[in-house]
Amino acid sequence: MRPDKRLNNQLRPVKITPHFLDYPLGSVLIEFGNTKVLCSVSVEEGLPKWIKEEHGWVTAEYSMLPAAGPDRMQREVSRGKIGGRTHEIQRLIGRAFRSVIDLNLIGPRTIWVDCDVLQADGGTRTASITGGFTALLIAVHKLMDKGVLTQNPVKQNLAAVSVGIVDGEVLLDLNYEEDSSAEVDMNVVMTGSGELVEVQGTAEGKPFSKDTCIALIDYAHAGIKELLKLQNEIVGK
Amino acid sequence: MRPDKRLNNQLRPVKITPHFLDYPLGSVLIEFGNTKVLCSVSVEEGLPKWIKEEHGWVTAEYSMLPAAGPDRMQREVSRGKIGGRTHEIQRLIGRAFRSVIDLNLIGPRTIWVDCDVLQADGGTRTASITGGFTALLIAVHKLMDKGVLTQNPVKQNLAAVSVGIVDGEVLLDLNYEEDSSAEVDMNVVMTGSGELVEVQGTAEGKPFSKDTCIALIDYAHAGIKELLKLQNEIVGK
Amino acid sequence: MRPDKRLNNQLRPVKITPHFLDYPLGSVLIEFGNTKVLCSVSVEEGLPKWIKEEHGWVTAEYSMLPAAGPDRMQREVSRGKIGGRTHEIQRLIGRAFRSVIDLNLIGPRTIWVDCDVLQADGGTRTASITGGFTALLIAVHKLMDKGVLTQNPVKQNLAAVSVGIVDGEVLLDLNYEEDSSAEVDMNVVMTGSGELVEVQGTAEGKPFSKDTCIALIDYAHAGIKELLKLQNEIVGK
Amino acid sequence: MRPDKRLNNQLRPVKITPHFLDYPLGSVLIEFGNTKVLCSVSVEEGLPKWIKEEHGWVTAEYSMLPAAGPDRMQREVSRGKIGGRTHEIQRLIGRAFRSVIDLNLIGPRTIWVDCDVLQADGGTRTASITGGFTALLIAVHKLMDKGVLTQNPVKQNLAAVSVGIVDGEVLLDLNYEEDSSAEVDMNVVMTGSGELVEVQGTAEGKPFSKDTCIALIDYAHAGIKELLKLQNEIVGK
Amino acid sequence: MRPDKRLNNQLRPVKITPHFLDYPLGSVLIEFGNTKVLCSVSVEEGLPKWIKEEHGWVTAEYSMLPAAGPDRMQREVSRGKIGGRTHEIQRLIGRAFRSVIDLNLIGPRTIWVDCDVLQADGGTRTASITGGFTALLIAVHKLMDKGVLTQNPVKQNLAAVSVGIVDGEVLLDLNYEEDSSAEVDMNVVMTGSGELVEVQGTAEGKPFSKDTCIALIDYAHAGIKELLKLQNEIVGK
Amino acid sequence: MRPDKRLNNQLRPVKITPHFLDYPLGSVLIEFGNTKVLCSVSVEEGLPKWIKEEHGWVTAEYSMLPAAGPDRMQREVSRGKIGGRTHEIQRLIGRAFRSVIDLNLIGPRTIWVDCDVLQADGGTRTASITGGFTALLIAVHKLMDKGVLTQNPVKQNLAAVSVGIVDGEVLLDLNYEEDSSAEVDMNVVMTGSGELVEVQGTAEGKPFSKDTCIALIDYAHAGIKELLKLQNEIVGK
Repeated sequence: MRPDKRLNNQLRPVKITPHFLDYPLGSVLIEFGNTKVLCSVSVEEGLPKWIKEEHGWVTAEYSMLPAAGPDRMQREVSRGKIGGRTHEIQRLIGRAFRSVIDLNLIGPRTIWVDCDVLQADGGTRTASITGGFTALLIAVHKLMDKGVLTQNPVKQNLAAVSVGIVDGEVLLDLNYEEDSSAEVDMNVVMTGSGELVEVQGTAEGKPFSKDTCIALIDYAHAGIKELLKLQNEIVGK
Repeated sequence: MRPDKRLNNQLRPVKITPHFLDYPLGSVLIEFGNTKVLCSVSVEEGLPKWIKEEHGWVTAEYSMLPAAGPDRMQREVSRGKIGGRTHEIQRLIGRAFRSVIDLNLIGPRTIWVDCDVLQADGGTRTASITGGFTALLIAVHKLMDKGVLTQNPVKQNLAAVSVGIVDGEVLLDLNYEEDSSAEVDMNVVMTGSGELVEVQGTAEGKPFSKDTCIALIDYAHAGIKELLKLQNEIVGK
Repeated sequence: MRPDKRLNNQLRPVKITPHFLDYPLGSVLIEFGNTKVLCSVSVEEGLPKWIKEEHGWVTAEYSMLPAAGPDRMQREVSRGKIGGRTHEIQRLIGRAFRSVIDLNLIGPRTIWVDCDVLQADGGTRTASITGGFTALLIAVHKLMDKGVLTQNPVKQNLAAVSVGIVDGEVLLDLNYEEDSSAEVDMNVVMTGSGELVEVQGTAEGKPFSKDTCIALIDYAHAGIKELLKLQNEIVGK
Repeated sequence: MRPDKRLNNQLRPVKITPHFLDYPLGSVLIEFGNTKVLCSVSVEEGLPKWIKEEHGWVTAEYSMLPAAGPDRMQREVSRGKIGGRTHEIQRLIGRAFRSVIDLNLIGPRTIWVDCDVLQADGGTRTASITGGFTALLIAVHKLMDKGVLTQNPVKQNLAAVSVGIVDGEVLLDLNYEEDSSAEVDMNVVMTGSGELVEVQGTAEGKPFSKDTCIALIDYAHAGIKELLKLQNEIVGK
Repeated sequence: MRPDKRLNNQLRPVKITPHFLDYPLGSVLIEFGNTKVLCSVSVEEGLPKWIKEEHGWVTAEYSMLPAAGPDRMQREVSRGKIGGRTHEIQRLIGRAFRSVIDLNLIGPRTIWVDCDVLQADGGTRTASITGGFTALLIAVHKLMDKGVLTQNPVKQNLAAVSVGIVDGEVLLDLNYEEDSSAEVDMNVVMTGSGELVEVQGTAEGKPFSKDTCIALIDYAHAGIKELLKLQNEIVGK
Repeated sequence: MRPDKRLNNQLRPVKITPHFLDYPLGSVLIEFGNTKVLCSVSVEEGLPKWIKEEHGWVTAEYSMLPAAGPDRMQREVSRGKIGGRTHEIQRLIGRAFRSVIDLNLIGPRTIWVDCDVLQADGGTRTASITGGFTALLIAVHKLMDKGVLTQNPVKQNLAAVSVGIVDGEVLLDLNYEEDSSAEVDMNVVMTGSGELVEVQGTAEGKPFSKDTCIALIDYAHAGIKELLKLQNEIVGK
C-alpha cells in the first residue's frame, strides 16, 4: 500500500485551473497532489538569432520558487547561472512540445512556455509538460480566433507522467517520498494516439531489465490516457 | 474619477490568503486588485558570512515571473545577474522588515522572505512588504509555539502602500496604468503606531513641493491603517 | 556639538574643482569634507537598445575605488557583478538628472555621468548628484557652444544633500561617523526653484514621525540652497 | 545501405587507446569511426560541499574542442557558462557511472572523469560513457594496486551506444549524418549483465510505438555486448 | 647536466603531426617532449564587431584540458571566466601571428587559431605559437588553392621557444621541472629572417643583467632556427 | 622632433604627489605628462586560499576610469568580467613588485596595490609600477614604524618606463599619439642596481633586430635612473 493509500496504477488527484493569470495568452495552474506548477504561454514576434530557417520556434523555461520544497533553495540567479538539473528539464519540456507542433505553421514567432513550480512534491517535470501543453492549446486557440494563426499547428495532443520501481513494484505518478527511494525512475511523454515522444528511464540504485522497462511504459500509458482526457475537458474540445 | 471608479483615497480590493504553500514556515498570497504576490518565509540556521556580530538576520528576495505583466519579461537568471530594479526593491523590503525586528532576539538564524510576483498591476513592492510581513508574523508565531524563539522579536507591525500624483491629484494605491502616467510616485512604509519607516518619493515628470509631500504621506497613512487592520485579522491577533 | 564642531545645520567645507580631467566633455572633482568624488560627463551618439522613442537619454554610473574607505573593498568586477548598493545609488543619480533634463532636446544621444568615489566619508551619493550635475552643466554649455545642441535641455538646476537624526537631533550633511549612528537617514534632491525631485528617508534604528520628516526636508532645503549657489559660481552663470 | 556501407546492426570501427596521457590515473582515447573522445580519470581527496554523507563521489565533465565539428563552435567559457546540452550530457555520464560504483567503497574522495571531444561525428555522449568507464577501470585498478582502495567499488561493467530510426529502419551507432536525419534517437547504457542503466529515447520528428522502443533496445543490447568485450580486452581482465 | 641529459642549448625532441583532425582547415599536434598541444585553424566569414576597418583578423584561443598536468585543474568555464594566465597567453599568441600576417590580404574574415594543451610539461605557450603557426600555414595554402585568398598574406614564417636561467646557467626549451626553479624565464618569438617579434623576459627570483638578456636571446635564436626548419619540412615548402 | 618638443631620450614631466588619499597605508598620484594614475596600498591580514606556504603575498589591481581617455570606455563590471588587457597588465605589475620583495618577511598578510588610471595618455602600466612602488615604499615604512614588520622586506627599489621605435627612431616614454604609431613597443622594469626585472618588447608593425632590442633597453635604463631618483626624493630616503 502506498503512503497515500493509492493503488500502484493510480494517479494523485489532478486538477487543472485554466486562466490562472490575466496577461499571458494561455495560463494554467496544474496540481498533481501537492505538486503545483504555474504554466504560462506567451508569444513573441521574432525568432532566436541562431534559427536560420523560416519556421517558428517553441521553447520552455522551468524554475522552482525558493520555498517550493521542504528546505529553502537558493535562487539560481543568485549563483548567476542556470543549474544543470534545470537545463536538463527545460530542454526536455521544449523538445516534447516541438515534437507535436508544426513549426512551419507558427510563422516567424517564438512561443514561450514558462513552467514555474510553486510547490514541489515529485513529478514537477511531467506536470510541467502536461500543464504547459494545456496552456499551449488555450493559447493556440486564441491565436487562431484572432487570425494570427490560420492553420492549427498542433499535430497531436501531449501529456506526460512519471513512473518508477519502488521496493520492486511498478508505481504510477510518484510523489517526492516515493521518488526518493525509487530504484528506477522513468518519465514518459506520449501523444493522444498513444505513441511515445520521450522515454527517459534511469536506474537510481539498481539496473533494470527490458521487461521492467516495458511494464513501466505500460503503466505510464494508462496514466497519460487519463491526463489527456482531463486536458480535453479543460480545453473544451 | 479613476479608471476603476475608485475614490482618490480608496485602496483596491485587498485580499490576503494565508498558508498558500505547505512547506515554508509562513506563506501568504496577497492581492491588491490584479497585483498578486506570493510571499514565503523560511528560516535557515546560520548567518551570512559578512555578519560578525551575534545577532540574527532578516533578508528579502523579490522576483517577477516572466508572464507577470502584459509583455513577457526575460528571466534575470538568463542574463546571469539580478537587475538594478530588483536589487533596489529587495533592499527596500529587507530594510523595512529589519527596522521593526529585534535581531538580537532571533539568534544566529537567517529569516528569508521571498516575494514572488505572479501578476503585476502596480504596487508590487508595497504589496510585497505588506504580504511578506504578514507571512513573517505567521512564521514568528510558529517559531514561538515551537519554542525556537522564546521572546517575540517583532517590535511593531508594518505595512506599506504606494501613493502618487496623477493629473495634479493625490491618489492612493496606484495601479499600473495610473503609475505609468504619475507625475510623482511615492512608496511609504509605516508601523502600527503610525510612524514612518521608509519614505521614497520620486518626481517622475515634475518636481513637487513640500506640501505635496505631506499630502502624499497623509494619504498613505490612511491606507496603511486599513492594511494593518486586515493584517491583524489574518494573523488572528 | 558635532565631532567636527559644525552646527547642526552646517555643511562641511564644499569644494568643486572644474575641468579636473582633460578628455571628458565636463568634469569636476567635488569634495564635501573628506568625501571626494570625481564626476565626468561623456556624450555618446546612439541610444540604449531598449529605448524605442526618439528622445535622448541621460544615465549615471557610480563606483568606489577599493581604497576609498578605511578598509579596502573588493572591486565589484572581481565578483563579476554590480552590487545591490551600487545599483540603488546609480539608479537614484540617473533618475534625478532625467527629472530636470528635457530628453527631447538631446537628440539621439546618450549622456553618461560617471561618478567615481576617490574617498568616502559619508554622503557620496548626494555629492555625486551635486558634482555630477555641475559637470553636466559644463558639458551642456560646451555642446551648445559647438552647436551640437541648439536648445538648452536643462529645465532647472539640481543639487542634493543628506540629512539625518543622530541622538534625536536633526543634522545636515552627515559624515561617515554620524551616518553610522544615525537613527534616520534621508537623501534629498531639490531643484533651483526649491521643489523636490527625490526624497528617500529611512529609519535605520527607530521609526520617525511625519513632523520629523518635515524638519529633515527643511534642513536639506537650506543646505541645497548653498550648494546651488556654489554650483552657479563654478559654472559661471 | 548506410552511407559508410555498414549493416544496420553494425558498429563503426571502435578503437580504444589506453594510457594516452601521462599524468591522469587512467586515460583513454576512444574512437567510434571519426568520433574521437579523450577520457581522463583523476582522483581528488575530499568531496563536494553539498555531500553530507560519508560516501565518495564520481562525477563527469564533458566538453567539445572548438574545432571538433564541421563549423567552429565558440568555447563555452567565452560565453561565461556551461550550455544546456553540455549540462544534460555530463549529468547523464556521471549518473551512469554512479549506478555501478559502490560509493561507500571509495572513501571521502571525488573521482573526476573528463571527457573531451577532439572530433565529433555522432555518438559523443555514448563514446564518452564507454571510454570514460574504461579509463575508470584502469584508474580503479591502479588505486587498488597502490592500496588506496582495499575493495573494488565497481559492481558491474558498463558501456553505451546510440541507436535510432532513419527512414523507418532501426540503425545501430549513428554517425552525424544519420543522426541529423533520424526520426527517433535513443541512447542506451547497459551493464555487463545486460541490464539497463539508462534509456533515453526521443522522437526527433515522429512519435514512435512501444514496439519500436523494444526493437531499439535490442539493437543497442547487441552493440553494447561487443563494446564490453573490447573494453575487457583493453583493461586486461 | 639537465635532468633529461640534454645539453643546455638542446631542444627536447620536437614532433609535429599535421592533419591531426579532419574538420578544421589546418590542424597540427605539436609535441615538445611531453608537452602536447593540439592546434587547429578555422576560418569564419565576418569580423569582430569592434573592427571598423576593412582588413581581416587573426586571433588565438588557448586552453588546457583539466588532466593536462600532474594535478587536475578546474575547467575555466566552471568558474565562469577566463583566467588571467590564459588571457595573457592567448593575447601573446594572437599578437605574434598578426605581426607577420598582412591583414589586408585576408579580406573580411576571422582566422581562429585554437591551441588546446592536451599535456603540459613546460613551454606550452611557445609550442602553441610554433604549432599554431604551422597549422596556419597549412590553412593558408588550402585557402589559396581554393581561391578564397588570391595573395599569400604570410609575410614571414614564425616560431617561438622558451629560454631561462637555472642555477646561473642559460638553458634552451625548459621543461616543467626546470621552469619551476628558473631564476629568469623568457619567451622569444622570432621570424624566419631572425628578427624579434616578441621578447618577454621575467625575473622569477633574481633580477638579471642586460648581458644575460642578450645571451638568452641568442640561445632562443638558435633553437628557433631548428623549429623553423622542421616547420618548413612539414608544410612542404 | 617629438610632437611635444621632447628629445628622444627625454621623459615627460613626471610628478609624484604622495599621501593623495587619507585611508590607505600608502598612496600616491603619479603623473607622466597627461597620464595620471592613483596608486594606493592596503594591507589585509590573511592570504589568498591557493597559497599553501607560510610567506606573505603582494598583488596588484589595475583599472581605468571610463572617462580616462578620448572616448568613454565601458566599465569592465558592466560586462561582468575583467578584460584580457587588464589581466595582462595587473599580472605584470604584481609580478614586478614580488620580484624585489622578500615575501617571507611580510608574514601571513596580503599587500594590495591598486592602480586606478584617472587619465590615460600612454605608459599607464609603467606609471602604475613606478607610482605603485612608491606607495608601497611609503606603506612599508609605516608598517615598520608601527612594528607590524620588523625587517624591511624591500630588497631593491623598482621603477618602469616604456620605450619604442617610431619612424625608425628609439624614443623614451611614449605618449598615446606616439604609442599608436610605434613599430615596436617595449616596457622595461628595472631595479635600483640597474638590473632587469621584466622586459616586454612587441613588434607592433615590424619585427626588430637584437641590436634594436639592446638600444631600447639602454634608453629605458637611462629613464628609469631618473625615476628612481625622484622616487627616493619623495620617499625621503
